[in-house]
Amino acid sequence: MNNRIVLAARPQGFPKDSDFRLEQTPVPSPADGEILVAVRWLSVDPYMRGRMNETRSYADPVKLGDVMVGGAAGRVLESRNAKFAAGDYVMGMFGWQEYAVSDGQGVRKLDPSIAPVSTSLGVLGMPGLTAYFGLLTVGQPKPGETVLVSGAAGAVGSYVGQIARIHGCRVVGIAGSDEKTRWLKEDLGFDAVLNYRSTSDYRQALAALCPNGIDVYFDNVGGAITDAAFTLLNPRARVPICGQISQYNAEKPEMGPRLLSLVLVRQVKVEGFLVFQFADRYAEGLQKLTEWVRAGQLKYKETVTDGIENAPQAFLSMLAGGNTGKQLVRIGNRDTD
Amino acid sequence: MNNRIVLAARPQGFPKDSDFRLEQTPVPSPADGEILVAVRWLSVDPYMRGRMNETRSYADPVKLGDVMVGGAAGRVLESRNAKFAAGDYVMGMFGWQEYAVSDGQGVRKLDPSIAPVSTSLGVLGMPGLTAYFGLLTVGQPKPGETVLVSGAAGAVGSYVGQIARIHGCRVVGIAGSDEKTRWLKEDLGFDAVLNYRSTSDYRQALAALCPNGIDVYFDNVGGAITDAAFTLLNPRARVPICGQISQYNAEKPEMGPRLLSLVLVRQVKVEGFLVFQFADRYAEGLQKLTEWVRAGQLKYKETVTDGIENAPQAFLSMLAGGNTGKQLVRIGNRDTD
Repeated sequence: MNNRIVLAARPQGFPKDSDFRLEQTPVPSPADGEILVAVRWLSVDPYMRGRMNETRSYADPVKLGDVMVGGAAGRVLESRNAKFAAGDYVMGMFGWQEYAVSDGQGVRKLDPSIAPVSTSLGVLGMPGLTAYFGLLTVGQPKPGETVLVSGAAGAVGSYVGQIARIHGCRVVGIAGSDEKTRWLKEDLGFDAVLNYRSTSDYRQALAALCPNGIDVYFDNVGGAITDAAFTLLNPRARVPICGQISQYNAEKPEMGPRLLSLVLVRQVKVEGFLVFQFADRYAEGLQKLTEWVRAGQLKYKETVTDGIENAPQAFLSMLAGGNTGKQLVRIGNRDTD
Repeated sequence: MNNRIVLAARPQGFPKDSDFRLEQTPVPSPADGEILVAVRWLSVDPYMRGRMNETRSYADPVKLGDVMVGGAAGRVLESRNAKFAAGDYVMGMFGWQEYAVSDGQGVRKLDPSIAPVSTSLGVLGMPGLTAYFGLLTVGQPKPGETVLVSGAAGAVGSYVGQIARIHGCRVVGIAGSDEKTRWLKEDLGFDAVLNYRSTSDYRQALAALCPNGIDVYFDNVGGAITDAAFTLLNPRARVPICGQISQYNAEKPEMGPRLLSLVLVRQVKVEGFLVFQFADRYAEGLQKLTEWVRAGQLKYKETVTDGIENAPQAFLSMLAGGNTGKQLVRIGNRDTD
C-alpha cells in the first residue's frame, strides 16, 4: 500500500488539518523508462504554502485531490531506466507519499558515504543552494560587512548565517525562541542574535545589535521585522528576498509603512529570487557546500517528524516556527527500514 | 546687489513661501583661484525637498539661513582661475542666487553652439544623465519589452520614455493632465499614456495599457500608482527607483500594501539609485544624450519662471506637478541680458 497526502481543500488563511487528506493507493508500477522509489525522507518547506493557493505564482498550483508537491529522498526499488539501478539512493520531486514512480527527470543520485541522504533535502539540497546563491550572488557580501538574517534558525537562514561567517562578515540572526537563538550563537557562531518574540521594539533592538548598520539583509520573513530592518540599511545595501513567511497566510496584502523612499535615498537593491534561477550553477554550489560541511564549517540541524500521516502536522508546525533547522518527515516501512 | 533665496524654516509637510527668504547681499568678489559667475538659469528639482529636512539622507541638509542648493548655469564675469576666462559659459552647483563665486570644482564649461545653455540643467545635465543611467544601467531594458514610467511628463520621465523608445521598447507613461499626456503621445512618441488624475482604478487602467505586463517600471512618484504598477510586473522585472515625489512631504511614512511578496514570487529587482553613482561615466552619457538631441530623437521641453524672487514658487509648483518637462528659473539682470 502507498500512503499519500493529497490537497483536500484550498486553505483560508493559516492551513488546517482538514486541508489535507491521507489516502491509500496501490504501490505504482514503473513503466518502461521509469523507476519506482521508496521514499525515506520527505521535505516540507515554506514555498509549499503558495502551491496550495488557487492562483499561480511562479509555479502551477497543486490541484485539489492531487498529491502535495515536495522534494523527497529514498532508494530505487525497481528500475526500468538505464540510468538507475535498484538500490540507488536518489532524491527528486516525489511528493508527499511513500512510493513514487519517476521518469528520472530531475532525479539526483546520492552517495551516502559523502553525507547522510537526508542532507539532499537540506544543507546539500535546495535550501543549501538557496542560501548559497541568495547570499553570495544576490547579496554580494564583503568581508567586514554586517549581514542580518531573518528566519535565522530555519534551514535556509541557518546556512546563510554560517556562509556569511565563512566570508568574513559580522552576522546577526533573528529567530523566535531563546533555544533557537542560543543554538545560533553558541553552536553556529552567529555574532549576535535577537529573539523577536521577546522583543517589543524591533528597530531599537536591531540598532543595538547592528551598530554599523546593515549591509546585507537576507529576508525570509517579511512583515514588521523587515520594516525595522529596512530603517537600518546602509547606503548601497543589498536585500535578497528569499521568503516572506509572515505573509503567506494573509488573505489580502497586509498594510505596512512604505519602504521605497528608504530604498531610494540609501540606494538599496532589493531582489526577489528563486533558486531555480541558478540551475546552471548547482554543481558549483553543491561542491562548495559539501566542502564546508565536511570541513565542519557549515553545520546543520534537522527536526524530524515520523510518519507520512504526520506530514501535514510537520508542515503546519514549520509554518508556525516549530522547527529548528530543516524540517523533515521520516517514513519507515518494510522497504525503507 | 546679489539677490538670493535662503532656507528660512524647515517645512512641515508641503513647503510654504515662508520656508524661504529673499535676501540681498553684495556681489561677492572672487579670491585667488576662484571665479565669479552671473547666473542666468537656475534648476529647481524634486531632490531639493529632501535637503530642506533636518535629517541627513544621502547628502547634508541645507542649514537654516543658508542659500538653497541647486544647479545653475551662467557666464563667468571675472576669473582668477586659470581654467576659466571671463565670458565662459559654465554650469555648477551655484545655488539659488544671482551671483556666485566658485573654486571651479565640479564646474563644467558649456559650448552654446552645441545646445542652449539651459539644457545643461536638463536633458544634457543631471536629469538627462539620471534618465540615461537609471533606465539603461539599472533598468536594463530589452527591445520589445514594456517600460512604464511614472512622472512621465517631468524632466527625467520624459527623457526616460524617449530613451526607452530609442531602445526599441514599448513605452507607457503616467502623468497628471490631459495636456501632458497628449504631449507625451503626440510629440514624444509614447505608445500609451495615462492621466492618473482622471483615473480611479490605477490597476485596471494600467492593465489595459500594458497587455503584456511590465518589464521595467521606472518610478519617479511612489504611492498608490506604484502599488498598482507592482501588481503588473512580469517575472524578472526591474524597478529603478528614481524618485518618490508623492512621499516627500509626508511627515511620517505613509502606509501601503506590502509589496515584497510580489517582489519575491516574480523575482523582481527593485533598485534605488542616485546619478552620482555613475559619475565616472558622465562623459559617455552626455555624448549619447547630445547625439540623440541633435538627431531629433530626444526632445525636451522647459517650463520657465522669471526672476530669482520667484524661485520658491517655481519649486513649489514643480512639487505639485505644475511643470511640463524641465522646470527652470530665468534670471535677468544687467550681467545676463
